Amino acid sequence: MTSEIITIGDELLIGQVINTNASWMAKALNESGVDVRQITSVSDTGDEITRALREAEERADLILITGGLGPTNDDITKDVLCKYFHTELVNDNKVLNNIQGFFQRKGLALTELNRKQALVPKGSTVIDNPLGTAPGLAFHKNGKLFVAMPGVPYEMKHIMQSFVLPWLQNNYPGSIIIHKTIMTQGIGESFLAAKIAPWVDGLPREIKLAYLPSPGIVRLRLSIKGKDRDIMKRLLDREVEKLMKYIPEYFWGFDDEKLEAVLGKMFKKTGKSICTAESCTGGYVAHRITGVPGSSSYFKGSVIAYDNHVKENLLKVPPDLIEKYGAVSREVVEKMAEEACKLLDSDYAISISGIAGPDGGSAEKPVGTVWIAIAGPDVLESKKFLFGDERDRNIVRAGNAALGFLRSVLIQKEGAG
Amino acid sequence: MTSEIITIGDELLIGQVINTNASWMAKALNESGVDVRQITSVSDTGDEITRALREAEERADLILITGGLGPTNDDITKDVLCKYFHTELVNDNKVLNNIQGFFQRKGLALTELNRKQALVPKGSTVIDNPLGTAPGLAFHKNGKLFVAMPGVPYEMKHIMQSFVLPWLQNNYPGSIIIHKTIMTQGIGESFLAAKIAPWVDGLPREIKLAYLPSPGIVRLRLSIKGKDRDIMKRLLDREVEKLMKYIPEYFWGFDDEKLEAVLGKMFKKTGKSICTAESCTGGYVAHRITGVPGSSSYFKGSVIAYDNHVKENLLKVPPDLIEKYGAVSREVVEKMAEEACKLLDSDYAISISGIAGPDGGSAEKPVGTVWIAIAGPDVLESKKFLFGDERDRNIVRAGNAALGFLRSVLIQKEGAG
Repeated sequence: MTSEIITIGDELLIGQVINTNASWMAKALNESGVDVRQITSVSDTGDEITRALREAEERADLILITGGLGPTNDDITKDVLCKYFHTELVNDNKVLNNIQGFFQRKGLALTELNRKQALVPKGSTVIDNPLGTAPGLAFHKNGKLFVAMPGVPYEMKHIMQSFVLPWLQNNYPGSIIIHKTIMTQGIGESFLAAKIAPWVDGLPREIKLAYLPSPGIVRLRLSIKGKDRDIMKRLLDREVEKLMKYIPEYFWGFDDEKLEAVLGKMFKKTGKSICTAESCTGGYVAHRITGVPGSSSYFKGSVIAYDNHVKENLLKVPPDLIEKYGAVSREVVEKMAEEACKLLDSDYAISISGIAGPDGGSAEKPVGTVWIAIAGPDVLESKKFLFGDERDRNIVRAGNAALGFLRSVLIQKEGAG
Repeated sequence: MTSEIITIGDELLIGQVINTNASWMAKALNESGVDVRQITSVSDTGDEITRALREAEERADLILITGGLGPTNDDITKDVLCKYFHTELVNDNKVLNNIQGFFQRKGLALTELNRKQALVPKGSTVIDNPLGTAPGLAFHKNGKLFVAMPGVPYEMKHIMQSFVLPWLQNNYPGSIIIHKTIMTQGIGESFLAAKIAPWVDGLPREIKLAYLPSPGIVRLRLSIKGKDRDIMKRLLDREVEKLMKYIPEYFWGFDDEKLEAVLGKMFKKTGKSICTAESCTGGYVAHRITGVPGSSSYFKGSVIAYDNHVKENLLKVPPDLIEKYGAVSREVVEKMAEEACKLLDSDYAISISGIAGPDGGSAEKPVGTVWIAIAGPDVLESKKFLFGDERDRNIVRAGNAALGFLRSVLIQKEGAG
């Protein structure tokens, strides 16, 4: 089973948009045991799309296409598909109903342009798209399957998950790939590699290891390919168990779970609550925590104290403490965390103060210096970090460090894990 | 002048790595007036690379290749290029010196594997790579140019900037492309299209229009291709000016500027300050505002009032107001905004309360219902929005709506724009 991906859109060829759709689809296909032979990006031009379709059809059994299904003039994929499969556009009442419902829910009137989206190539399989107005379209030809999907990432993902991946599972149950991702926080890629080197040396040949670093988080992905899911899973689990012993203090989860979701489970289990008092992260940690569905049951709120007066007035940090030690200091973050617990009536608090950059650094406290404290029942701990020069990355790294720090305190104090 | 990009590497086809190289190169070529006809990703396999080269050669004058030039076994691009151009590998002393210097500076010994990197295809133009060990390689064939570069992004960029782009400027000083992106907020793609339809109808044929939607923001990209930058710029500016008249209330900036950065300039200009009082967005708006370097000069801080008690205790929202109208109501957000101004000693405040989902919706107030208020000197305005079902998108859309709302109030009250 060989597949190809065709992503359509001028925005890709002028470099305005990074092709994240292609990598998402490639990953999903790969995990279903399907090889991706080529990824092709072409412009919104009839000739180019047709050529790409013809070439992909020669090489692959499954051809996935994204882009150009929208309602505007630059969206021509549907017309091109009609010509390619020698058919014509016809109105589809089910799609029209979906579009009408979509706009009704938003309290908006239907435009002529939206009505056009109910036109689908005759003979194609229409795939429901509840997240948007353009349906997915599937075509069967000489035992090959073509699936055209909207370019909007979450609409594409929905159609992949509701149609393409189930279709693969039903029709090509053959070879499988299993991945297991081990999430770590608080250690850099090369140090992690050195730490687990003896384990890597003993890794069975069937298991492939990849390092996937992002700011503050390193993921280790193990992959195994084969026929028998049970045997593969057992082999993988055994190796993961061995690996854990090398990195107990850095490991926090599996399979692209989010650190804030892991914490959420711990709070739900212990019945404890959390709040934040943030300076340099400016609400990023609260945003991460509240991104988890159901977080309102344990997250109380935050004070974002960007201005020192807010630290003094709301968080009761004495002005002379700021004057003596600076706003970025152990003394100030510890006070911020303690007061946040009281002010927001919360069991635990994360507090953060640092220099995100590009301005505000000094020889003593360069850009990237961040103090983080955790306060809770009978606990007040703080740590200093030195990140890098880039504002955006510093905010993300400080956020991951704070969540990782909170996790280790919760394990220690609440026995949650 | 037509070009193609071939990116080589299994990591692209299994979706492990997002192809940022391709978009960077496409953008650079495009800005030099060179069309990119196709972007192709293939695996580290001799047959696949050869086929991609052959097909690209048929269509394009300039073929840029990245990846597979490293020292390890999976790097086969150099061997494939030798076969393709009927030549052989020979040692290049200049490259060997560079490699030796590279390792010496790092205090590392040279391995046999690294020494292999000094082998280059006979007859190729060797392009210096001071940032790594694999040089770039250029091949001329029937008036066409092939350039192979390492896949490491900063090494690729260096070779593009030191060799490919200067070569284009010297050999094809002719045609140029200018883009202008118009940023809008507060109107969906299809409604925007309907609104500007008369303008689209009158658009000169040389100008191409594309719609680029993301949650809460739609970008309109105008592109023009030609020889005379001044004439093109004038034509583009004239059309942008006409377009503005159709969408004054939705337009807020140009060329992928960020909405929060536009607001930052307004605050710096007026000397006014801002704070937020957030419920359902959980700090996301504060995070957006503080993502802008220098935001500490106008951003005071926030109260994230997730728990109703925080709304009552810190933001002085009377409990009976919440009981009577609900936490998601005009009355509550207006009170939150007014009190935030006082509490955080700020000229303006954004307040937000809504139901992000997946839980918490009702028939009267379904998931996606969001109230936003803006308070300021002599101003208190509020609006109700109805977004969709997805938590993440609701948070982003509420954030963009709040920032867009604030912008319109600032224009109206401060004459900033």
